[in-house]
Amino acid sequence: MTEDEPIRAVTALQLSADGTARERREEVAVEAPFAIQLAGETLAITMRTPGHDAELTAGFLLAEGHDPGGTAAARVVKRGTLSSAACGVCGRDDIEDLVTRLSPVRAETSFQRPVLVRALQRLPEHQPSFARTGGLHAAALITQTGEFAIAREDVGRHNAVDKVLGRAALDGLLPLSGYFLAVSGRTSFEIVQKAVAAGVPAVVAISAPSSLAIELAERFRLLLVGFARGGSLTVYAGQFRLEGV
Amino acid sequence: MTEDEPIRAVTALQLSADGTARERREEVAVEAPFAIQLAGETLAITMRTPGHDAELTAGFLLAEGHDPGGTAAARVVKRGTLSSAACGVCGRDDIEDLVTRLSPVRAETSFQRPVLVRALQRLPEHQPSFARTGGLHAAALITQTGEFAIAREDVGRHNAVDKVLGRAALDGLLPLSGYFLAVSGRTSFEIVQKAVAAGVPAVVAISAPSSLAIELAERFRLLLVGFARGGSLTVYAGQFRLEGV
Repeated sequence: MTEDEPIRAVTALQLSADGTARERREEVAVEAPFAIQLAGETLAITMRTPGHDAELTAGFLLAEGHDPGGTAAARVVKRGTLSSAACGVCGRDDIEDLVTRLSPVRAETSFQRPVLVRALQRLPEHQPSFARTGGLHAAALITQTGEFAIAREDVGRHNAVDKVLGRAALDGLLPLSGYFLAVSGRTSFEIVQKAVAAGVPAVVAISAPSSLAIELAERFRLLLVGFARGGSLTVYAGQFRLEGV
Repeated sequence: MTEDEPIRAVTALQLSADGTARERREEVAVEAPFAIQLAGETLAITMRTPGHDAELTAGFLLAEGHDPGGTAAARVVKRGTLSSAACGVCGRDDIEDLVTRLSPVRAETSFQRPVLVRALQRLPEHQPSFARTGGLHAAALITQTGEFAIAREDVGRHNAVDKVLGRAALDGLLPLSGYFLAVSGRTSFEIVQKAVAAGVPAVVAISAPSSLAIELAERFRLLLVGFARGGSLTVYAGQFRLEGV
């Protein structure tokens, strides 16, 4: 496996609806920072899946108006004024800057599997706008006993998380050591990073985590659960926070 | 309806799998720019669903490390150094800058409904990494006759689109007047904007469009289709590009 692979194998604990638990190898999508540079200047850092990075850069430049003529992006690349070779590294440094400001979640909070399962089954009740449009993500802050404290919807999943954690901050509830964060979609680096910043010890998602979400959860002591559907849960990090497993 | 509503009603043409077509009112999620400012300086512009904007700002600041102490974000807001009142306006101006660089898609290309339906049904064949992980989005550039020209996957849906359109730019295929762009998820402003920049006359998505995606598609003469599933299509803009309807 190299840094350029789009998929990585991880060990996860699969908890089935019938109560069985088994450790297995799972494949997850790789998420890694990449700096888009033009003539040595970084225009943007994007969290992307490695591979086809020259195409990503050309497409980004095109959309940002650096290529009004239609084929200039190609010429830009061919002339070599794009320096994408070092991008992985500089991107990673910037991410490292963001991460070094964070502290591990020290609270020893743990969660009961049935509480997580039931809460995620009830998440649709807190998605009234999704029910009407099919077009919004949701995030919710839920107590250890399964009470929905705050739930928000937004076209951007990171925005939904910001609204939930922002409300909690405005209410003086931080650090959020007695709650878990539920999300309606996938879990990225950014979602785990926001949870850590707010002191939330667990993130439980309906869908898959990225490689970097798992790494960050492990490093900062978060329980990270994915594929919380139909009574099942898959644990990717922080299993010590799950009771009775 | 005010600018602060999270949902907007639009008129859409629903084409069912049985061949019937009917115009109906549909609700879509509102997407609108919002500038996150601290002490008068814009830190970021995010495309968000209106509502709970003070929470969004507080949550964003928290995650960016502006609130290491846990409750400072709340104090920042209460002290009034956050100027979010004018944000909608400044965000809109910046978006307008981006949009004024774009030109409408002038090519009179049209598409056949069965080609769109069959192509979207075949999209999963071009999502090998999603099949293994459940954690990636896909985008594909498809010809008028339904041939997959380029398909890419990424944890970020905008990245998948950039990779597809960037490959086409590198191959000298722009403007892409003989193709449509298929996307595995929802359609945002940014995805339509990228399609316009590459001269693609149609975007066809598995899931819902946002309000701003529809507005942009109308303004720049794109066919915009959503909920392309199970033989059905919902047309939100550019119906003149759909043959036999």
